[in-house]
Amino acid sequence: MPLMKSWVTSANDAAHPFPLNNLPYGVFSTEGTDPRCGVAIGDMILDVTAAEAEGLITLSDTPLFDVPFWNELMEEGPAVWAALRERLLALLAEGAEEQAKVEPLLVPMDEAEMHMPFAVSEYTDFYAGRHHATNVGTMFRGAENALPPNWLHIPIGYNGRASSVVVSGTEIRRPWGQLKSPDHDQPAFMPCRRFDIELEMGAIVGTPSDGPITVQEADDHIFGYVLLNDWSARDIQAWEYQPLGPFQAKATATSISPWIVTKAALEPFRTDTPAREFELLDHLKDCGPMLYDIDLEVTIAPEGKPATTIARTNYDEMYYSAAQQLAHHTSAGCPMNTGDLLGSGTISGAEKSQRGSLLELSWGGKEPITLDSGETRSFIEDGDTLSLKGAAKGDGYTIGFGDCVGTVLPALKDPFAR
Amino acid sequence: MPLMKSWVTSANDAAHPFPLNNLPYGVFSTEGTDPRCGVAIGDMILDVTAAEAEGLITLSDTPLFDVPFWNELMEEGPAVWAALRERLLALLAEGAEEQAKVEPLLVPMDEAEMHMPFAVSEYTDFYAGRHHATNVGTMFRGAENALPPNWLHIPIGYNGRASSVVVSGTEIRRPWGQLKSPDHDQPAFMPCRRFDIELEMGAIVGTPSDGPITVQEADDHIFGYVLLNDWSARDIQAWEYQPLGPFQAKATATSISPWIVTKAALEPFRTDTPAREFELLDHLKDCGPMLYDIDLEVTIAPEGKPATTIARTNYDEMYYSAAQQLAHHTSAGCPMNTGDLLGSGTISGAEKSQRGSLLELSWGGKEPITLDSGETRSFIEDGDTLSLKGAAKGDGYTIGFGDCVGTVLPALKDPFAR
Repeated sequence: MPLMKSWVTSANDAAHPFPLNNLPYGVFSTEGTDPRCGVAIGDMILDVTAAEAEGLITLSDTPLFDVPFWNELMEEGPAVWAALRERLLALLAEGAEEQAKVEPLLVPMDEAEMHMPFAVSEYTDFYAGRHHATNVGTMFRGAENALPPNWLHIPIGYNGRASSVVVSGTEIRRPWGQLKSPDHDQPAFMPCRRFDIELEMGAIVGTPSDGPITVQEADDHIFGYVLLNDWSARDIQAWEYQPLGPFQAKATATSISPWIVTKAALEPFRTDTPAREFELLDHLKDCGPMLYDIDLEVTIAPEGKPATTIARTNYDEMYYSAAQQLAHHTSAGCPMNTGDLLGSGTISGAEKSQRGSLLELSWGGKEPITLDSGETRSFIEDGDTLSLKGAAKGDGYTIGFGDCVGTVLPALKDPFAR
Repeated sequence: MPLMKSWVTSANDAAHPFPLNNLPYGVFSTEGTDPRCGVAIGDMILDVTAAEAEGLITLSDTPLFDVPFWNELMEEGPAVWAALRERLLALLAEGAEEQAKVEPLLVPMDEAEMHMPFAVSEYTDFYAGRHHATNVGTMFRGAENALPPNWLHIPIGYNGRASSVVVSGTEIRRPWGQLKSPDHDQPAFMPCRRFDIELEMGAIVGTPSDGPITVQEADDHIFGYVLLNDWSARDIQAWEYQPLGPFQAKATATSISPWIVTKAALEPFRTDTPAREFELLDHLKDCGPMLYDIDLEVTIAPEGKPATTIARTNYDEMYYSAAQQLAHHTSAGCPMNTGDLLGSGTISGAEKSQRGSLLELSWGGKEPITLDSGETRSFIEDGDTLSLKGAAKGDGYTIGFGDCVGTVLPALKDPFAR
């Protein structure tokens, strides 16, 4: 599929993240106005809430966009998702009849503030990157026990906190937590000293389910994807995670990119999961290409300094697709709801330069990395800005996600002061 | 505090679970009517939604009970919680002026169907019973590694699935899951063979917080308590739980009792946490008695047979209070919301007869227990009805919770059939 041309001419650039082929969904506001639904097209945002109010978009008897989140569309299911995309393509394509009516509803993106694009119902984080799991397992449990025995058979995951999911741009306060240094007898409550990122993709559940679903059904339930940074306090995690898994180490914040890229936009980029040494059980087997070829990048910028790219990898490195993760998630009967968010797990490639966390990049702090400014980093320092970037590269066009950015603020002096 | 007398005379019985001293909050419907808010008094339910609509209860400019859950009251905070209790005491006490107006709003409890009393925002399950943790740790990791090194320093917990929380009476379908028998090389997907209960108390977060809070503040945020049964698939758990904790093993269902017993009703029963061998860090220290003296009991009834009591214990066996758990939950900055539910962890006493799970009662299936009917049980069999019961015993009165009941149905033949 080539670049589809829009009368919003900034969208007609092979390198622009938001061509007509993309049409990602977000929630925005401009100075003095309330948050509302919008779709990115080139350097502009089409105010979808206004377009619906003016009758340019009619998908349902009751409005779907009179709320500042996309959940109401998500609940409607794949036929309505397709109808909206078709309508947006018609309104925004080069030569569109209704250009004159649509033009007044465009807002320059650089005047907009972005908000959470959807209400997160519950949040689950997986651990489905083989290189990441092997790296972390080697550091925590030694090379011989790196990959747990279950890992090649089920997509290991744990439930996270939906309340801590924030949109890109939200500042992240370094947490306090209970830590225990190997050289101390007793734990202490203090600011985290090994604060980290995790480069992930987030899959968003569109339609609910109530009981086990197949991998193909799971893929049909997924609405779209975002970039996701699962901020992680490694020292809190090391002390707390046995025997019931990470808890406060992952509770400070999880950032997502502001635009939901739909499955339809990613369709040309579908790719297979890797070859497997153990055949998966029937209910988890691949039934078509359900990963996506999406280039991913992490940058870090110390306060007042330029950014350095510290990792480049691709979503196709995952061992399990989001559809396989969702199918597993429902296997014991767990009901899933519109707005459930599934983190892929940290995405690392085989090479050192492809690792999606500082824990891996600095090998637990033993091999600090050097930034362009000459500074070194083992973990995040106060004032650092971390950015995740993602792009699927098509034939003469790009499907971008919008960066997932967060600046880390110093820990509070007294976390209980009011 | 003695028994407080009500003009609803069935409430004036020392053994009745719902005297005027209690006034627990639920959501009920009768045949042909919609679910609405109610308060239990003796054998009756006062229709609180109707009482508000008729002007007998006025707490706010906008209605709080025009929705079938108690979250809107919970959001209002402790002053409004106290005002409602005061008003209900006035309306229902012996000699109440407004008895004639209130009487038509009473519904016989045996004509009511109970629903979820509140909308669960997120669900967290702790592991704060020392005997339980020691028993399970001994079975899974040996006596010398029974209690993990962190256990005496932090209330270990993990995030569960709010979507799987159901009200007492809901039938529970035996789940399928990925299991691996020790004598098989490869895992298989099959119905759970070691399905179990966990006897717990659930604490309900009333008012939201956004950042670390102290133990005293945490206690102030808690709205009330329910009985909680965290249904657990032990064979799924054994295969999946390393390294990130339980996931599908706990995702089938968690049942709660239908009535929220308020903190005010439990006030006379406050008791201290046990003596500690390690002093807790300052932010987790007790600041007054924050556990409660509540007798707990588990019964099991095979299909068509009478129930046998299989365990008796008390909530005062917990090592950490719900307030300490909530304070820990916020320590890394995790926002908490109205309707968050915190499971205490399984409550077991020191004696074998005080163990709150079949895993412990049958010592992993090695010592099946014998029921009054002569049958034996290691884990739950299809058709079994499990009930949790709770009561705080006052001076001439009882604060009951309403049983937390679930009958286990056979696994589906094909979990993916539609």
